[in-house]
Amino acid sequence: MDTSPTLWWDSGKDCLCYIEQTLLPGEYRIIECRSIDRLATAIRRLEIRGAPALGVAGAYGVAIATLTAPEGPFSGFTERVKQDAERIRSTRPTAINLGWGIDRVLASLEEARSREDAQSIAFREAGAIAREDTACCHAIGRNGGALLPDRCTVLTHCNAGALACSSWGTALGVIRSAAEAGKDVKVIACETRPLLQGARLTAWELARDGIDVTVITDSMAAHFMRSGAIDAVVVGADRITHDAVFNKIGTYMHAVCARHHRIPFYVAAPLSTFDPEKSEHNVEIEERGRDEVTTMGTRVYIPDGAKVKNPAFDATPMDLVTAIITETGVLRQPINTRSHLSRTTSH
Amino acid sequence: MDTSPTLWWDSGKDCLCYIEQTLLPGEYRIIECRSIDRLATAIRRLEIRGAPALGVAGAYGVAIATLTAPEGPFSGFTERVKQDAERIRSTRPTAINLGWGIDRVLASLEEARSREDAQSIAFREAGAIAREDTACCHAIGRNGGALLPDRCTVLTHCNAGALACSSWGTALGVIRSAAEAGKDVKVIACETRPLLQGARLTAWELARDGIDVTVITDSMAAHFMRSGAIDAVVVGADRITHDAVFNKIGTYMHAVCARHHRIPFYVAAPLSTFDPEKSEHNVEIEERGRDEVTTMGTRVYIPDGAKVKNPAFDATPMDLVTAIITETGVLRQPINTRSHLSRTTSH
Repeated sequence: MDTSPTLWWDSGKDCLCYIEQTLLPGEYRIIECRSIDRLATAIRRLEIRGAPALGVAGAYGVAIATLTAPEGPFSGFTERVKQDAERIRSTRPTAINLGWGIDRVLASLEEARSREDAQSIAFREAGAIAREDTACCHAIGRNGGALLPDRCTVLTHCNAGALACSSWGTALGVIRSAAEAGKDVKVIACETRPLLQGARLTAWELARDGIDVTVITDSMAAHFMRSGAIDAVVVGADRITHDAVFNKIGTYMHAVCARHHRIPFYVAAPLSTFDPEKSEHNVEIEERGRDEVTTMGTRVYIPDGAKVKNPAFDATPMDLVTAIITETGVLRQPINTRSHLSRTTSH
Repeated sequence: MDTSPTLWWDSGKDCLCYIEQTLLPGEYRIIECRSIDRLATAIRRLEIRGAPALGVAGAYGVAIATLTAPEGPFSGFTERVKQDAERIRSTRPTAINLGWGIDRVLASLEEARSREDAQSIAFREAGAIAREDTACCHAIGRNGGALLPDRCTVLTHCNAGALACSSWGTALGVIRSAAEAGKDVKVIACETRPLLQGARLTAWELARDGIDVTVITDSMAAHFMRSGAIDAVVVGADRITHDAVFNKIGTYMHAVCARHHRIPFYVAAPLSTFDPEKSEHNVEIEERGRDEVTTMGTRVYIPDGAKVKNPAFDATPMDLVTAIITETGVLRQPINTRSHLSRTTSH
C-alpha cells in the first residue's frame, strides 16, 4: 500500500512540499511552499486539509516563520514568529489540530536563545510531529482494524485518509490496517458535498491501494444502510469536545441514520484532536463561502435570488458514537474523553 | 405567484411545448416536441421530470402517437399507437404517473372508430389530465397548507414544484398555498445530488415567487434539524405503494432524521401516484448512469478505479410518514392508502 507522505520538509530545496489536494484526482501536483502567506492560502483554499495534516502544517508554519522573520534583535524575532503563528492559526477555526501543532512548536521555542537555535528546534519539533502522526495513524489503524469483521463493507465520509494526515490516515488507516491484516474490507465513500473530498480524495487513495471502493452521493447512505449493505461507519474528527465530535458536515446525518439502523458508528482520531475541557457550544463552526455550494467548474447551479448556507462541519453528540478509536486504545460508551486523555498520556 | 404551465399543447404549432429543465436556472428555453423519439429523449434526459408532469407527458405522448402513426388500416394504426405508448412507458420505471397518464389515454381510445376520432379523443383526454393536474395541485396545496404553522420553515427535497407538474406543484403547492393564505413560510431546499433539482429548480421557482428560500447540501439537513431551524419536512412522491413512499434518492434519509428530531414528515402527492396493490419489493428503483455522479460540467471528480452507484429513488417505509396530503384529503397514521383510494374516488 502507498505510504508516500502528504506533506514533508525538503531540506535540499528548503521548502515545505505538499500534494495540492484541490486538483485531485485529475492532476497530481506537488507545491513548494516557502512563506507564511503561501501556507495560509494553501490552508484556506484546502490545498492542505484534514485535521492531523493541519497539525503538521501548523508546526511547519512556525518553522517557516523562524526562517522568514526579518533580521533584528532576538526579542523582535520571537514576536514576529508568534504573529506569523497567529496568522496561520486564524485560517481555520474548527479543527483543533492546527492550533495544537502551532502551540507545540511555539512551546518548544521557549528554550531557544538565538535565531539559529530557534530554527533548529522548530524544525526538529515539526519533524517529530510529522513522524509521530504517521506512527499514530498506524496505531489507530491497528486498534480500529481489530473492531471490523473479517468480511465487511465500511461507509466513510469526507477524507480521513493519508491525504488528511502525514500518511496512512485515521478512518482510512483503520480500513488499510484491516486490509493489511487480511480482512476483506470494501468501502462505500460518500462524495461529501460541497467540495467532494470523498469522491476526489478517498476514492483516489483507496483505488490506488487496490481497495474496493464505491462512491455514492451523501444522500444515498441511509438507503444503503436500510438495504443491509453497510456493516459499520468509520469517520475521522476535526475536534472532540467532552460532549461532541466535530467533523465534516454530513457526519451527524450518518450518525443518526447509523443509530436508526443499529450500525456501529466509529470515530477514528488521534489524541491531538481531543479538546475535553471544551463543550460543543464553545466551538465555532466555520461558515465557508457561497461559491462552494453554488458553483461547479464555470456553471452556477443556484439562482441569485436564493440564499445559501455552508457550514463546513457539524457536531455529533457523544451518545450517538459507538466508540472512538485512538492511538492509545478504544473508548467505548460511556465515552469519557477527559479520563482517557489523563489515563493514557502524560499531559 | 407564477402559474405558467410546465408543458402544454400548442394547437397553433401542433406540438407539445415544455420548459427544458436541465438548462435551468442559467437558461429558460421552451422546446417544441412533435415526435415520440424526441419525447422519449426528453423524459430520459429529465428535460421533463417530476411524477405528475410525467403523467401529462405520457398522456400527450399517446396523443402525439395518434398524429405520427403511418397511414394504413385502423387496426394497424391502433397497434402502432400502443407500441409507441410502450416506448414512452419504458423510459423511466419508478414513477407510476407516467404509465397512469399513458393508460388513461389508451383506455379512452377504446371507443375510437377512426384515426381522426382517435386523435380528437386522445387530445381531449390529455388536455383533461393536464387541467385536472393543476386543479389537483391546488387542492393538495389547500389541504397541506392548513397543516403548516402560521410562521414556519419547511425543508423540501428535489423539486415537487410547478416544474414537476402542470403548474403550482405538490410539495411546493403546499408551500405556495400556505403563503397565499398569508402564512409566513420560509423554505430550506436541499440541493438534491446528483442532478441538483433542488438547487436548480426549487430555488428558481420559489425565488421567482418571492418566497424566502435557502439552499443547502443534502448532508446539512440533519444539522439544521438539530439546531431547531426546521419545523416540517414536505416532499413529493413518485409512487406510493401500500407500505412505502418512493421518491427522489435522499428522501428516506430526511424521513429518518425527521423522526429522530420529532419533526413532522409530510408527503404531498395526487391520487394518481398511489399504487396500493403493490408492495415496496415489487417496485423497480431506476439505476441511472455513472456520469451523473462522476462528472459536473467537463470535470470528472471520481477516479476511474472507483465504482459508483446511482439509484434515482429510495423507499421510505410508511411508519416514518406523518401524513400523506392528497387532493381528496389528508391520510394520517395508521395510513391506509387502499381504503383512502376506494373511499374518496369512484375507481
